[in-house]
Amino acid sequence: MNTFGELFRLTTFGESHGPAMGAVVDGCPSGVALPLERLQAALDRRRPGQSSLTTPRAEPDQLELLSGVYEGRTLGTPIAALVRNVAARSSDYDKLRSEDRPGHADRVWRERYGHRDPRGGGRTSGRETLSRVIGGAVAEAMLAEHLPELRLVAWTTQVGPVHAPELSALPSRAEVDAHPTRCPHAETAAEMAALISRARESGDSWGGALELAALGVPTGLGEPVFGKLKALLAGGLAGIGAVTGVTWGDLDALEKPGREFHTRASVYGGIQGGLSNGEPLRLRVWFKPPATLGEHALNGRHDPCILPRAVPVIEAMAALVLADTWLLQRARPHRK
Amino acid sequence: MNTFGELFRLTTFGESHGPAMGAVVDGCPSGVALPLERLQAALDRRRPGQSSLTTPRAEPDQLELLSGVYEGRTLGTPIAALVRNVAARSSDYDKLRSEDRPGHADRVWRERYGHRDPRGGGRTSGRETLSRVIGGAVAEAMLAEHLPELRLVAWTTQVGPVHAPELSALPSRAEVDAHPTRCPHAETAAEMAALISRARESGDSWGGALELAALGVPTGLGEPVFGKLKALLAGGLAGIGAVTGVTWGDLDALEKPGREFHTRASVYGGIQGGLSNGEPLRLRVWFKPPATLGEHALNGRHDPCILPRAVPVIEAMAALVLADTWLLQRARPHRK
Amino acid sequence: MNTFGELFRLTTFGESHGPAMGAVVDGCPSGVALPLERLQAALDRRRPGQSSLTTPRAEPDQLELLSGVYEGRTLGTPIAALVRNVAARSSDYDKLRSEDRPGHADRVWRERYGHRDPRGGGRTSGRETLSRVIGGAVAEAMLAEHLPELRLVAWTTQVGPVHAPELSALPSRAEVDAHPTRCPHAETAAEMAALISRARESGDSWGGALELAALGVPTGLGEPVFGKLKALLAGGLAGIGAVTGVTWGDLDALEKPGREFHTRASVYGGIQGGLSNGEPLRLRVWFKPPATLGEHALNGRHDPCILPRAVPVIEAMAALVLADTWLLQRARPHRK
Amino acid sequence: MNTFGELFRLTTFGESHGPAMGAVVDGCPSGVALPLERLQAALDRRRPGQSSLTTPRAEPDQLELLSGVYEGRTLGTPIAALVRNVAARSSDYDKLRSEDRPGHADRVWRERYGHRDPRGGGRTSGRETLSRVIGGAVAEAMLAEHLPELRLVAWTTQVGPVHAPELSALPSRAEVDAHPTRCPHAETAAEMAALISRARESGDSWGGALELAALGVPTGLGEPVFGKLKALLAGGLAGIGAVTGVTWGDLDALEKPGREFHTRASVYGGIQGGLSNGEPLRLRVWFKPPATLGEHALNGRHDPCILPRAVPVIEAMAALVLADTWLLQRARPHRK
Repeated sequence: MNTFGELFRLTTFGESHGPAMGAVVDGCPSGVALPLERLQAALDRRRPGQSSLTTPRAEPDQLELLSGVYEGRTLGTPIAALVRNVAARSSDYDKLRSEDRPGHADRVWRERYGHRDPRGGGRTSGRETLSRVIGGAVAEAMLAEHLPELRLVAWTTQVGPVHAPELSALPSRAEVDAHPTRCPHAETAAEMAALISRARESGDSWGGALELAALGVPTGLGEPVFGKLKALLAGGLAGIGAVTGVTWGDLDALEKPGREFHTRASVYGGIQGGLSNGEPLRLRVWFKPPATLGEHALNGRHDPCILPRAVPVIEAMAALVLADTWLLQRARPHRK
Repeated sequence: MNTFGELFRLTTFGESHGPAMGAVVDGCPSGVALPLERLQAALDRRRPGQSSLTTPRAEPDQLELLSGVYEGRTLGTPIAALVRNVAARSSDYDKLRSEDRPGHADRVWRERYGHRDPRGGGRTSGRETLSRVIGGAVAEAMLAEHLPELRLVAWTTQVGPVHAPELSALPSRAEVDAHPTRCPHAETAAEMAALISRARESGDSWGGALELAALGVPTGLGEPVFGKLKALLAGGLAGIGAVTGVTWGDLDALEKPGREFHTRASVYGGIQGGLSNGEPLRLRVWFKPPATLGEHALNGRHDPCILPRAVPVIEAMAALVLADTWLLQRARPHRK
Repeated sequence: MNTFGELFRLTTFGESHGPAMGAVVDGCPSGVALPLERLQAALDRRRPGQSSLTTPRAEPDQLELLSGVYEGRTLGTPIAALVRNVAARSSDYDKLRSEDRPGHADRVWRERYGHRDPRGGGRTSGRETLSRVIGGAVAEAMLAEHLPELRLVAWTTQVGPVHAPELSALPSRAEVDAHPTRCPHAETAAEMAALISRARESGDSWGGALELAALGVPTGLGEPVFGKLKALLAGGLAGIGAVTGVTWGDLDALEKPGREFHTRASVYGGIQGGLSNGEPLRLRVWFKPPATLGEHALNGRHDPCILPRAVPVIEAMAALVLADTWLLQRARPHRK
Repeated sequence: MNTFGELFRLTTFGESHGPAMGAVVDGCPSGVALPLERLQAALDRRRPGQSSLTTPRAEPDQLELLSGVYEGRTLGTPIAALVRNVAARSSDYDKLRSEDRPGHADRVWRERYGHRDPRGGGRTSGRETLSRVIGGAVAEAMLAEHLPELRLVAWTTQVGPVHAPELSALPSRAEVDAHPTRCPHAETAAEMAALISRARESGDSWGGALELAALGVPTGLGEPVFGKLKALLAGGLAGIGAVTGVTWGDLDALEKPGREFHTRASVYGGIQGGLSNGEPLRLRVWFKPPATLGEHALNGRHDPCILPRAVPVIEAMAALVLADTWLLQRARPHRK
């Protein structure tokens, strides 16, 4: 289905080449400061065409608020927002009507639904993540009001064979955004950028990995059994199209015995017994290289490497999970 | 919360050292053959004390069916089952009442709930997975009736530094169960067993990885956006205590460019656009080494390596996801 | 929350005096014929200003489809639609900013949300039912495709002291719509119209009752325990603002002993053991008179009697429940 | 499905003539005092065989707690409880195996599930309400801890043609339980008892109505649109087998114009704009006469009038709704 979350719920709609993409956020408390600019700024971070490394599809992605906000504050009612698809060029996709694109889900989609929306992949398009970014921005606005010390940031840590070194400190979003690749380590960023540029020219593509971290997460978020914080994060993040894995801690450390493994608190990634333990939350999200290659890529205007633009999407999904678990924890007044 | 699934729903209950563990499966259609022996056999595969490699806590894990089955077939009503905790030795844990066990979630749990059930960890105990195995067995019974060609199997592929080679063919469950380590590659299995035995003697522990595969999965299971099949699997599997990551395809292949990456169908792990694509489903689940070490481990009767006993739990969670998505897909009569 | 249904889900948004009202329908299968005119026609039946008996607030209620439909057929993706609030006159309500309207929920809303949206009552306004009518129209389109014999109709049966006689046959929607009161019994309709007109002039209002009937409902819809068909209908219908009761069969018949009561099949209202029994579905929905009186009513442009305009809303909620339970029943392939 | 509630969730299981009935309550906070006697006392109020007016089926209904409570307080984990069906006499029902009982859902159930559990009606039996009473008792225990001033009580107000007069003050549960009919007005109670006794002897039965009231309900419970408090109550109460209607306020008052209707606060039944308004909650639940008549009734040991035993079930469902909406309201920290 197209709804995410239990108490803080995001419902999304829109085909990438239909009239509009949109989001309805239900469950946000009233009184949260939510200026339109905040939402627009979040969208702008995800928008294509920000650098030479991304798709040239030029969408202004102008957000319109339809409900839920009055005089810059939430009403406690559903917050609906939409973004028109102005650069939709269905004609580009007409020729795709009868042929399945290699590496795409066209055949699967057709067998399931009895049709394949020829207009750019419909709901499986990366453009759908725009709605998630809207939801994440609302979640962050709510969290900012109630957990001012919370800091949530993701950054590119691997593009193909290029790996960033372990950072000495958590980067800020500004530091991450300073590089088109969204890798805050300048030298590595340059190397990644070169790699992506070459792929773009040759119609090739790259996958890799992002790192996600959160400071200031309150202790006890999540539920002990199926709703473990790591389960909710894994489910939320694996729901992003190109994600091919979600892991905590250092996979290489699994080669070591427990006696050695458990000496560092960081191996828990901030989650124990399914609940946040007050330590920094830390996980890695793996991405496969985009499937559209060569001629198709040039016409369909896709990204040779999705990682830079995936950063705000990953942050958005994590914010949605934190917002939801935070509301859930508030609901239950446990007594000693 | 303690319920998993939308249409095929498992609700679990029970503290590891309370009177009983149990499961309620809601949404199973009527008329499914479900002899008690089938459920008991599933539990026996997970039971401790099956080999010298696991905890000596000797639980008979005798299953009692309370509802939902009549003359060996399901009624379409909730199927409730329970297992008494006969070997619960709360006394062992009495001394833990005032001290938090290293590497355990005791402190987190105490802060969240205002107490820490001193009896063996309560709901975060691995014993809770017993209820999942019951749910998985019902799911498999239903799938067996409607998708007779479905084959679901998991096996140990890594214990600490020991890695199994890529198998030439999918193993059967019997082949997996033939080795106490549940690694179907005999030579590697022996190496793993030796490693685990030594850890057991020295109060140490090992993590590693399992491989999960499914053949005969119908095309189109899952939902295109948040309910992608990979998202549901990742969420379900990451909800198991010791799991520290879920990944699809070969992470090492992410070092290669897209043009090369997309040449093999297996890189999709059987999922495209969020939906099963009819190819074999394939993913990897990573486990950290158990936290209880040394003296605590000896008294508390824990496993030095959870992987062999995790195999049926992983299969159970995957079966629950497949059962749920299969029912969901049936609900919608798409037309051309 | 603002979502209704399990598998066929309606999410609504919009404040009555904000920019727009809208609906997102999730779970509708692909391939259902859904021309824009069908949705617009449904809205037109609910629109104010259709006769001298309703509020003069003149909203064109022009529907815009944002997603989920391509070339007149559903895609299987979320169907989003919106209607702009062009006649919103916030100025009318400015004076209400500091005073609570008698009979309205203003105080309750303010205590709950820490504010009262002064713009016409926000989400508790009857205008919110517009979104339900959109959802109901999609539900009916789906049901029409798969259950062509289904017939769902509601009509006014009581306005204040005026009661319609028992009809000899189920009326058609055209017969119901032929009268501004939506009572298909001409004589009674005239009496009701006179009553409402006088109330309009004197700033008074009337409650009453509607009758809902459905023919061609398949046997077995609903779930035996909490999700009984009558429970879902009661919950759905009681969620409409002015509804003050939902009943099945003849309340007066409860004065008779069981031996007599159970002689007529109609006493079950088409539901037994919680499931539809294949007989005509039949229930009554009771409405209180609108609360806004006198001067406020004249300025705020409210209806002196909500019943005529409630007819399509009641039908919409019933259609949503039938669509949802029909999908749920399809999901489970019960065997003998 | 067999789960009720969003945050405070009751899952029930058990066929009336299977091994056991049971309940799992999920979402109850930790630290709530919940002595076994409290749960047993709740069950005893619903138990058959308490007076000559009810079925002679003699079930001890001894409750066993399986999880969720430790040293008399909740753990914050699922609370599972079961009651064995010791008086199940399947033999009584053997002859029913091939014939559908008049007035029962046997045929409907058989068409839906492809079978009819011959053992006493399976899940549609009134015995299923036992599980609801367990859930309600946990809900009341939680509410008692956090809302000590809350008072929830139901009583019989109509049996067939006998109506109780309007009470001058809300009765206590003790006052209600003082009469086998659970009508706190002594004279009317005697009349009702005589009526029921005669029906019992002649194999007849009676329907009627209950009144439900709650004092001390906090303002603002419920959600403005689909989750209106009245919608949740209507849905919850209409989910009880014999219920044939749920209404608020005085249906006769609907004959009066709004100007007159809205002069008394009691017409709102304690709910405005979908939310509790701080006034006493008040509603009426209508019951049809039990269907089993004559010879079948005598063998099958059913009640000639369900109302006295329905009182604790109605209270239980109301308590579950209040518990759930109270947790939901706590979840959202609205700001001014």
